[in-house]
Amino acid sequence: MSLVDGLIRELQRLPGVGPKSARRMAYHLLVRDRDGAFELATIMKRAADEVGHCSLCRNLTEKELCDICASHKRNRQQLCVVESSADVQAIESAAEYQGTYFVLMGHLSPLDGVGPEELGIELLEQRFQSGDVTELILATNATLEGNVTAQYIASLAEPAGISVTRIAHGVPMGGELEFVDGHTLRAAFTSRREFD
Amino acid sequence: MSLVDGLIRELQRLPGVGPKSARRMAYHLLVRDRDGAFELATIMKRAADEVGHCSLCRNLTEKELCDICASHKRNRQQLCVVESSADVQAIESAAEYQGTYFVLMGHLSPLDGVGPEELGIELLEQRFQSGDVTELILATNATLEGNVTAQYIASLAEPAGISVTRIAHGVPMGGELEFVDGHTLRAAFTSRREFD
Repeated sequence: MSLVDGLIRELQRLPGVGPKSARRMAYHLLVRDRDGAFELATIMKRAADEVGHCSLCRNLTEKELCDICASHKRNRQQLCVVESSADVQAIESAAEYQGTYFVLMGHLSPLDGVGPEELGIELLEQRFQSGDVTELILATNATLEGNVTAQYIASLAEPAGISVTRIAHGVPMGGELEFVDGHTLRAAFTSRREFD
Repeated sequence: MSLVDGLIRELQRLPGVGPKSARRMAYHLLVRDRDGAFELATIMKRAADEVGHCSLCRNLTEKELCDICASHKRNRQQLCVVESSADVQAIESAAEYQGTYFVLMGHLSPLDGVGPEELGIELLEQRFQSGDVTELILATNATLEGNVTAQYIASLAEPAGISVTRIAHGVPMGGELEFVDGHTLRAAFTSRREFD
């Protein structure tokens, strides 16, 4: 197999990239952006080599502590549990959340062999025991697995006297009722609150 | 900037990849496919390093001659001129063409500083002079630049006694007339031919 064909094949590892876009990417890099191909390859190799997990929150970082855990500006009393690094990114770019995170890197899924150990629950319990955390915010996905995982983690936090909250689920802001699925609409009615 | 953020930034060099998909790709590689990231980075670096142009047709290859030019099964009397490696790929996977190619790696565009020299026209003229080529098939794009480029190349081939053809333009097979743009429809009427 030629190097060009090999590159086209390997590019298809990327999520959302099929044969056609892989081909377009390979030609782009080789014909128009040779320097860029070097730089991308270099940082990809370095990242694959050096990036590990934050020793406090499990998020991806090449350092001992991620930038958020290392920051003195973040409120250590609030701890938000999410399923993935992408969720941290989404919250950071949207909400005015100033607390810290714990990244499960997945959700409980016994059938796939994902139990508390794979999600670093032991590390999370250490945070609970440390006495630093006063509020635990459960921000796992609004899926069956995400809800089960949230319930399990809540059951560990409550005995430690930590106040446990779950982010709200309901009709998206700007969303029109007629286009919202029934499951979400039911959740929005169940979680209705005093109008102020 | 962290390595993860650096990787996300560099991935956006790829055509069609914005911040969101770059982030998804980076997390996928780092969380779920670390070995794949190594392999992709390795082949990308090798390709950026070693891939050059075929000395006969200018197509991308890490060898002196590309697989098509090196093959004894291809008909050297037919020479098809295309704008890019992607065009070669498209023709190879679609048509039963058994001739050889010449890849311009662009089209004439004086305003962008792309003249005959940048397109390797000298190399193409050597093929014309060699006497091997009896039919030149112009398969540059059906754009203004592609047509101008085709005309220019035809003007060089004809004095060498080479028969020059242009691939047909018209209504795509399976295409419905009402959805075909007017420009294409006019071309299809102009190029109409005896029904058999």
